[in-house]
Amino acid sequence: MTVTAPAPARFVSFEGIDGSGKSTQARRLADSLREKGFDVVLTREPGGSPGAEEIRSLVLEGAPDRWSAETEILLFTAARRDHLERTIRPALAAGKIVICDRFADSTRMYQGLRGAGLRAQVDALHNLMIGVEPDLTVLVDMDPETGLSRALGRNGGEERFETFGAALQADMRAGFLDLAREYPSRIVKVDGAQPIDAVAATVLAIVEPRLR
Amino acid sequence: MTVTAPAPARFVSFEGIDGSGKSTQARRLADSLREKGFDVVLTREPGGSPGAEEIRSLVLEGAPDRWSAETEILLFTAARRDHLERTIRPALAAGKIVICDRFADSTRMYQGLRGAGLRAQVDALHNLMIGVEPDLTVLVDMDPETGLSRALGRNGGEERFETFGAALQADMRAGFLDLAREYPSRIVKVDGAQPIDAVAATVLAIVEPRLR
Repeated sequence: MTVTAPAPARFVSFEGIDGSGKSTQARRLADSLREKGFDVVLTREPGGSPGAEEIRSLVLEGAPDRWSAETEILLFTAARRDHLERTIRPALAAGKIVICDRFADSTRMYQGLRGAGLRAQVDALHNLMIGVEPDLTVLVDMDPETGLSRALGRNGGEERFETFGAALQADMRAGFLDLAREYPSRIVKVDGAQPIDAVAATVLAIVEPRLR
Repeated sequence: MTVTAPAPARFVSFEGIDGSGKSTQARRLADSLREKGFDVVLTREPGGSPGAEEIRSLVLEGAPDRWSAETEILLFTAARRDHLERTIRPALAAGKIVICDRFADSTRMYQGLRGAGLRAQVDALHNLMIGVEPDLTVLVDMDPETGLSRALGRNGGEERFETFGAALQADMRAGFLDLAREYPSRIVKVDGAQPIDAVAATVLAIVEPRLR
């Protein structure tokens, strides 16, 4: 009897609610892997390529009702397509590890949970125009109140999503946990309430064996 | 035996290759209908709402290879969704006539003909995120050489599509004529090579009876 090992992970995403610490953890993982000699591209969504960063500005600046959920889904998918073509695919083709702060799961949550039928529309659009998932997704799970207070304490002009408030953050957390159950072989949940160093050690212990 | 009259047309688009005179004809039709007492909204794509005009700038400015065909399709569809929500649907709901210089047929041609499988992708995306066609489309048909010389003679910073040149214009014309055969009850072809006044009179004679 032979056991087939899973294909090595080269494309790793981080997901979680605002203030969960996922951006910090993505950076920490990139740093640790570089120290170990891996060639790592750390990138983020929305954005991650010059065109996608311009789309990011278009979506995140201005009034919260500037775009409908459907138009936002289209703009984020356009940004993701550009990011995939110009940054992610070339890096993977060159043998690099890609660590991405948010990917399609964030659209499934932030836009997909805004109204009836939107999640199905996000998925259909993803299948039509993107068609790629990360090899491994680290879900940094966090109590919404802790996450919200961290997010609101941060400086930055792009706080639009935070303005949806505590109820939305609770829905998002529940949605991300549902998503982890929906994609059990891709999404690994880690407890974001632990000290940052402990979370980073846990993440490294999960990801590094999957890279070999 | 009863004959059912077609539903009155309230949403009329103009299509054609660059330099075909469709923008002039859209404006002439709007002027004529306003003189006859119709309440007309004249709009255009890409653009036609504040958000969609910003997406227009993002797509049309910069190098021709700045975006892949797929990303362009997504950005134009995002612009169309915003235009539909913020300009076209409110105008139709208020009982106005909407005359639109280009709509989804232009995406079917300009992006859909750029590579294998793209037309099917444009249509699938349209069905998923837009789902609306004009009641009536006026295709201003024009010999590509005449159209191209008119287009190149124009002033304007958004000449990206014109740079594709004469061969593309010929493909576009053939594509639009195919489209008219694909949607015979929606698309009416007019000869754009006639004098402008004659074309305008022909267009008015086609459209006005459909408005009542």
